Amino acid sequence: MSNKITARIAPEGSLDLVSQHEVNLLKDRSNRGVYRLFRQCALAVLNCGNESDDPNTILAEFADFDIQLIQQARGIKLEVINAPHNAFVDGKMIKGIQEHLYAVLRDIIYANNVLSHNTQLNLNNGEDITNFIFHMLRNAGVLIPRRYPNIVVCWGGHSISRDEYDFTKEVGHSLGLRGLDICTGCGPGAMKGPMKGATIAHAKQRIQSGRYIGLTEPGIIAAESPNPIVNELVILPDIEKRLEAFVRLGHGIVVFPGGAGTAEEILYLLGILLNPENDSLPFPVIFAGAKKNEEYFGQINEFIGLTLGKAAQRRYRIIIDDPELVALEMKKGIQDVTYHRKGSSDAYYYNWLLKVQPEFQHPFQPTHESMRALALHREQPIHDLAANLRRAFSGIVSGNVKEEGVQLVERLGPFEISGDKTIVGSFGSLLESFVKQQRMKLPGSKYVPSYRIVD
Amino acid sequence: MSNKITARIAPEGSLDLVSQHEVNLLKDRSNRGVYRLFRQCALAVLNCGNESDDPNTILAEFADFDIQLIQQARGIKLEVINAPHNAFVDGKMIKGIQEHLYAVLRDIIYANNVLSHNTQLNLNNGEDITNFIFHMLRNAGVLIPRRYPNIVVCWGGHSISRDEYDFTKEVGHSLGLRGLDICTGCGPGAMKGPMKGATIAHAKQRIQSGRYIGLTEPGIIAAESPNPIVNELVILPDIEKRLEAFVRLGHGIVVFPGGAGTAEEILYLLGILLNPENDSLPFPVIFAGAKKNEEYFGQINEFIGLTLGKAAQRRYRIIIDDPELVALEMKKGIQDVTYHRKGSSDAYYYNWLLKVQPEFQHPFQPTHESMRALALHREQPIHDLAANLRRAFSGIVSGNVKEEGVQLVERLGPFEISGDKTIVGSFGSLLESFVKQQRMKLPGSKYVPSYRIVD
Amino acid sequence: MSNKITARIAPEGSLDLVSQHEVNLLKDRSNRGVYRLFRQCALAVLNCGNESDDPNTILAEFADFDIQLIQQARGIKLEVINAPHNAFVDGKMIKGIQEHLYAVLRDIIYANNVLSHNTQLNLNNGEDITNFIFHMLRNAGVLIPRRYPNIVVCWGGHSISRDEYDFTKEVGHSLGLRGLDICTGCGPGAMKGPMKGATIAHAKQRIQSGRYIGLTEPGIIAAESPNPIVNELVILPDIEKRLEAFVRLGHGIVVFPGGAGTAEEILYLLGILLNPENDSLPFPVIFAGAKKNEEYFGQINEFIGLTLGKAAQRRYRIIIDDPELVALEMKKGIQDVTYHRKGSSDAYYYNWLLKVQPEFQHPFQPTHESMRALALHREQPIHDLAANLRRAFSGIVSGNVKEEGVQLVERLGPFEISGDKTIVGSFGSLLESFVKQQRMKLPGSKYVPSYRIVD
Amino acid sequence: MSNKITARIAPEGSLDLVSQHEVNLLKDRSNRGVYRLFRQCALAVLNCGNESDDPNTILAEFADFDIQLIQQARGIKLEVINAPHNAFVDGKMIKGIQEHLYAVLRDIIYANNVLSHNTQLNLNNGEDITNFIFHMLRNAGVLIPRRYPNIVVCWGGHSISRDEYDFTKEVGHSLGLRGLDICTGCGPGAMKGPMKGATIAHAKQRIQSGRYIGLTEPGIIAAESPNPIVNELVILPDIEKRLEAFVRLGHGIVVFPGGAGTAEEILYLLGILLNPENDSLPFPVIFAGAKKNEEYFGQINEFIGLTLGKAAQRRYRIIIDDPELVALEMKKGIQDVTYHRKGSSDAYYYNWLLKVQPEFQHPFQPTHESMRALALHREQPIHDLAANLRRAFSGIVSGNVKEEGVQLVERLGPFEISGDKTIVGSFGSLLESFVKQQRMKLPGSKYVPSYRIVD
Repeated sequence: MSNKITARIAPEGSLDLVSQHEVNLLKDRSNRGVYRLFRQCALAVLNCGNESDDPNTILAEFADFDIQLIQQARGIKLEVINAPHNAFVDGKMIKGIQEHLYAVLRDIIYANNVLSHNTQLNLNNGEDITNFIFHMLRNAGVLIPRRYPNIVVCWGGHSISRDEYDFTKEVGHSLGLRGLDICTGCGPGAMKGPMKGATIAHAKQRIQSGRYIGLTEPGIIAAESPNPIVNELVILPDIEKRLEAFVRLGHGIVVFPGGAGTAEEILYLLGILLNPENDSLPFPVIFAGAKKNEEYFGQINEFIGLTLGKAAQRRYRIIIDDPELVALEMKKGIQDVTYHRKGSSDAYYYNWLLKVQPEFQHPFQPTHESMRALALHREQPIHDLAANLRRAFSGIVSGNVKEEGVQLVERLGPFEISGDKTIVGSFGSLLESFVKQQRMKLPGSKYVPSYRIVD
Repeated sequence: MSNKITARIAPEGSLDLVSQHEVNLLKDRSNRGVYRLFRQCALAVLNCGNESDDPNTILAEFADFDIQLIQQARGIKLEVINAPHNAFVDGKMIKGIQEHLYAVLRDIIYANNVLSHNTQLNLNNGEDITNFIFHMLRNAGVLIPRRYPNIVVCWGGHSISRDEYDFTKEVGHSLGLRGLDICTGCGPGAMKGPMKGATIAHAKQRIQSGRYIGLTEPGIIAAESPNPIVNELVILPDIEKRLEAFVRLGHGIVVFPGGAGTAEEILYLLGILLNPENDSLPFPVIFAGAKKNEEYFGQINEFIGLTLGKAAQRRYRIIIDDPELVALEMKKGIQDVTYHRKGSSDAYYYNWLLKVQPEFQHPFQPTHESMRALALHREQPIHDLAANLRRAFSGIVSGNVKEEGVQLVERLGPFEISGDKTIVGSFGSLLESFVKQQRMKLPGSKYVPSYRIVD
Repeated sequence: MSNKITARIAPEGSLDLVSQHEVNLLKDRSNRGVYRLFRQCALAVLNCGNESDDPNTILAEFADFDIQLIQQARGIKLEVINAPHNAFVDGKMIKGIQEHLYAVLRDIIYANNVLSHNTQLNLNNGEDITNFIFHMLRNAGVLIPRRYPNIVVCWGGHSISRDEYDFTKEVGHSLGLRGLDICTGCGPGAMKGPMKGATIAHAKQRIQSGRYIGLTEPGIIAAESPNPIVNELVILPDIEKRLEAFVRLGHGIVVFPGGAGTAEEILYLLGILLNPENDSLPFPVIFAGAKKNEEYFGQINEFIGLTLGKAAQRRYRIIIDDPELVALEMKKGIQDVTYHRKGSSDAYYYNWLLKVQPEFQHPFQPTHESMRALALHREQPIHDLAANLRRAFSGIVSGNVKEEGVQLVERLGPFEISGDKTIVGSFGSLLESFVKQQRMKLPGSKYVPSYRIVD
Repeated sequence: MSNKITARIAPEGSLDLVSQHEVNLLKDRSNRGVYRLFRQCALAVLNCGNESDDPNTILAEFADFDIQLIQQARGIKLEVINAPHNAFVDGKMIKGIQEHLYAVLRDIIYANNVLSHNTQLNLNNGEDITNFIFHMLRNAGVLIPRRYPNIVVCWGGHSISRDEYDFTKEVGHSLGLRGLDICTGCGPGAMKGPMKGATIAHAKQRIQSGRYIGLTEPGIIAAESPNPIVNELVILPDIEKRLEAFVRLGHGIVVFPGGAGTAEEILYLLGILLNPENDSLPFPVIFAGAKKNEEYFGQINEFIGLTLGKAAQRRYRIIIDDPELVALEMKKGIQDVTYHRKGSSDAYYYNWLLKVQPEFQHPFQPTHESMRALALHREQPIHDLAANLRRAFSGIVSGNVKEEGVQLVERLGPFEISGDKTIVGSFGSLLESFVKQQRMKLPGSKYVPSYRIVD
């Protein structure tokens, strides 16, 4: 039996309102990448049940996959050819995945216009980047006015143990019982568990409007394809815009155990919160783990203390083995956010007041050169060091699971990282423990390090 | 910290439209039982997280529980006093439980009118019973016209193992992915698992109107209190009307492993389907279990073969270790039901054509006399034997977990059961295996048999 | 071209959930009147565009009309045979009329149960009547909890001039702009105009949930068939229950010019409000008319002053030629009602606290004997006089437009009315002016008086 | 009492999702006209009850009117200062007008981006104009996929008699009873009547999703401010894009009597339909009038015959005094459109296949020079003549009621129009009859011609 399916998909909602101009954009395969990007993200979305995080394997397996737009009287249909059969039940595409497919279409069209033309927004300018993210989220229907703050961002690894996964479900359940919504990077593991738990809790509380928001970007989507519970999916153009979307859309953040990607997210967040202009902004951050994760968070905490210091450590709280408490504290923290927004007339649905420095906004392109050139020493402001550490983790994620990075490492060997000894040493130890705990890649595949600490 | 909470509950929907006449009915504590019944069911509903199936324990623990109606401008509120704190999150009652409370109010008021007065319906008459059940279900909003048949009744034990529970979740997930809804007896175990699985599957399929129907009755509700996922709860007046509601409302039935209650349900169902007038009615029945349940269903199948014969065995299919197949077969079976209803102009939402004989409709009151008097021999039509075996199991359930039965057995010793040797022997072996497998009562408590096989 | 249409009608909502018991009830043409009643009301509802208020003409024209219930898989359908073509557009029944047809079905089934059996409610008892009306309105979905008081009852003639009609539209528009809903007797003229005006105003205010409630009864429905804007129709069993429904459901009343029916309504209302137990209940009543109606309301006011005295006059306010002021005053009055209900914990959706004396509740059967026997003198409490005057007007309405009354008068001549000279004189003058102003019957037909004042 | 009101308006829906970039755009009063445009359109929208079509009067009366954006936690609010009190009921803005205000905000922001920057769309290119209109309508939520064609565009004068107005209401009622929606230029007169009629009819048919679409543009909005029934308002950037929006969005067109604006619309429509590439496209066009309009449409028909010939006359049908027939024919015509779209896979919601030539797309700026230079002779293809006649009427509308045109004419005298004698003669006679029938301006004001026929 073939495990590939060809089918035509009609959307609901109004995702199929595509102009001829836009149809042409996507049809033109000579185009500077729009069709290619669309095909790649579509495949990732369809591949959601697949147990691999290796983009090359996926691309090879579905080399004959194709996707096309078909104009019909009742709207645009999508035809998928040789698509992964996981996306279907009895030959019909799962509705959630269908929506994801149209979300891909929507976001690629929208971003293309701004990214490839001289519009009012200039993406070299920090404020314009922030406005652009707002416009993308608005176009995706993710900004909802007149709704009280309740979005909890959950970060954590895609490769976690069964126990850890169950713990994330319990936290999601406790959050959901309190009417809180979930936003994650939308892959498996700690990105899926809280959504499952919240779905059950929302059912118990008769909350029909529960939100399970997934924010992703083309580089990571293949390795961490969105789970179908995600009912609001946005594909931001790159990792930096995705991270900014998390901190402007979310009202609080729970961090579960994870690997390099999670460390990247932590560094990004702390780097921003350490900015003196953000001193008075409430922003609840909780590191949450099961009993057995106590040591893990000890290591993380130590690394942060060593590199960013006590000020950074004051910005989060570690809660072990107590899902109820996580939810209660998060609810209280979001209450503070609500009062603060009201008092400062900042929108509930978008954190305009948060200052994000340009070094956290401009895309970092990990190459052997750029990785080696990272300034990992103490002769710079703390938030600049945070920015560079963030980039270092980002490069390692790329070398682990992103198509481009994986290919670079295959060709030229691991990225080399150097800098201040204590910093780089601590950095290396943390990564090593991630490797040992199988947090870098899904178990089953042997992990070949994408980095090397050099003196 | 006290584990009891006092609170006022306001409903949504229109469950609070209670007339002064009805308020008086519930206020009058001298009344022939209406207030008492209301209090008892309300307590059961509030006690949903409790891990006990012993009604006496529950009643003792919450002896000071009280519930009152309070008229206010915006509708009737309910005040609960010293209620189980499990029903609350941060001091606010879980919405699902709140709805259950109002469902109790609604059904007790509705049934009282018909049960205690000479209305158009005469509850000694079989057809009138069937009409009465229709009226109750209609009043509860459970009958929905113009909706294609998709209700899968799931039967099975409240006391099952973790593996068995996970299996019921998987079946629920497979059913839910196919747009099927779940109806159960609404307690824990096999009554909860399928609903959880279907909730996640419905979320993936963006089905907002997923139905998780719970049918219960005052005798069992304390031992098997409704889980809060149940979004349509009906409290029928007695076990026989509850069973009839299952077979008239549901479009197919999946039976998971269980104890005496599940056996009662199987005997009831087969007894009806064996009626020659029901020969041509499609009614999909699947016995479904995990790998390790193969033997269990072998025993059941053997018992049925021995007592009711091959004709009965042809009415169900046993599927082991294959949730997908269960769902596929159920979907096909319901397709047949749909065609048949259409062809015979029978309502999709109520199985009028199914013939239920009076011996399955009239309440059976298990006492030491009535239990001993049961005719368990072959000198009667097969469906009469089925009816009597059903009563025997029913009595044992009562002796296990129902307030009245438990008290009878405590006072007078186990029910005695006698009859044809092979029948009673097979009956006894089956029960013994239930006891060994801890299916009679929740683990933790030692099971003291409520029955004794006598010669 | 035939002006009659035969068609099958499928409902939406759940109005087609009819049990076999109820189907049998309606099918049995030997039954004590249920089929006949159903057919008669159904015909009235279908005949909505017809310009006649003469029930005999209508009955004759549609002698071959028939209606039947047909059970189908997706619910009960209604088949209408030789129905008035006005109810259809291009062969399809107007949706509003379709709903009315099912409302007739619903109410006749519901009322029959209580009216013809010994239920908990005893319709010789005043409190039980009030509870019964509550149950009927609840069953019809007309009682909506958690909605602020906003129902304005509009009374007035079915036979009014174009100017008067436009004025009622303007008042309806002003009420609608303020978010107020309309409840009327649901026929043409002053019962239709306010609904039209409010519909436009609700559209401007984007109120999708605007309510246009029609309350009628089998005797009057043929002469004043519901206009299709009515989106909640209730057929009460008799005129007295319909009047009680108006005053318990409505939060304020606007009276437009009308004939004997309107006078009946005014007398009913004032008779109740004059009851000392209702002294402290706020109940806004406004007599509203165009410039040219100033004299008309002068006459009414005079008649009230003469018969019921100043106390009665204090219960209403006359506003001429100022729709905005009518709406503003009504809104203020309903505000008072809201405060009062809140303060006294009386339901917003049903005026339980209003005391309605038995003489206003028990059906009055107008015959030549009962009309002549009416006590129209001052030797009785004022509200008893009001009750008897109400009955006198009621009898005249019957003689004008109700099947039974019209036939009585045709056979035996006009009803004779006698009593205290000043009262009966004033009564006669008022009626005479109604005749002159063509308020008794629709213009076109010559009015033959159904009454005679005797000494 | 002042007739001006100052208030803060909070929207519903998501119209208040405005980025800081966009807030700045609207705040900057030095900006190249965005604030000015916003203020002007906002005032027009608020002025809806006003009985003047003279933009100068309006501007003068509300010289102190101002509007501001205010950022708040729950979204952007609008503050209006010294706004016309007509827009308010008891101090609260009418919801429909509130929505219009936000529609103005939305459309001005959206159009500004494309109009003032080099985006993917080039507004000198015809196809890009068509795509741009699609994008604007999509952004306004006016394109709804998976809905069967049912939009009837109604054209006709803002200044018509009471009888004519009632006739447009009846046609709207007949259309509405058949489930058809209405789209107009959204001013008074023939633009309001059909919406009122359809609102009542939709209420009778229980159609909650009835659409009353108004398409306008900054030049005309002051003279023809949207009536509050309009529940979907779009402000296109200029008259040509507005006309193209009508023919791409609408599925059929009813033309009622009107003046120069209506003539402009007719010429535009016929000019396009005469394009041979549109030959096989079904597009129902009906000229509809009351009995007394027979002569009026005779004149129009004659003018078309004389200037554009028989081919043009075949594209419409004249129906007099028969609203039912108008609706029936329109329904049939739209049925043809539906089949054609399905057959050719063209979207139901946007008429991509209609060919609109560039001369109908590029803005025509009426000045004394451009008006005089219009080629009104037969030495050109028929559709070019139609295009020029369209421009001639357009210029006259501008001179009648648009701010810019009115000021030009005040300064430099009437526009001069010359050309082929028979054409110009017929043109002049038609205009003269409009003047006589008071179709150029609202009655009350004396009409001073804005044009002069010269040889």
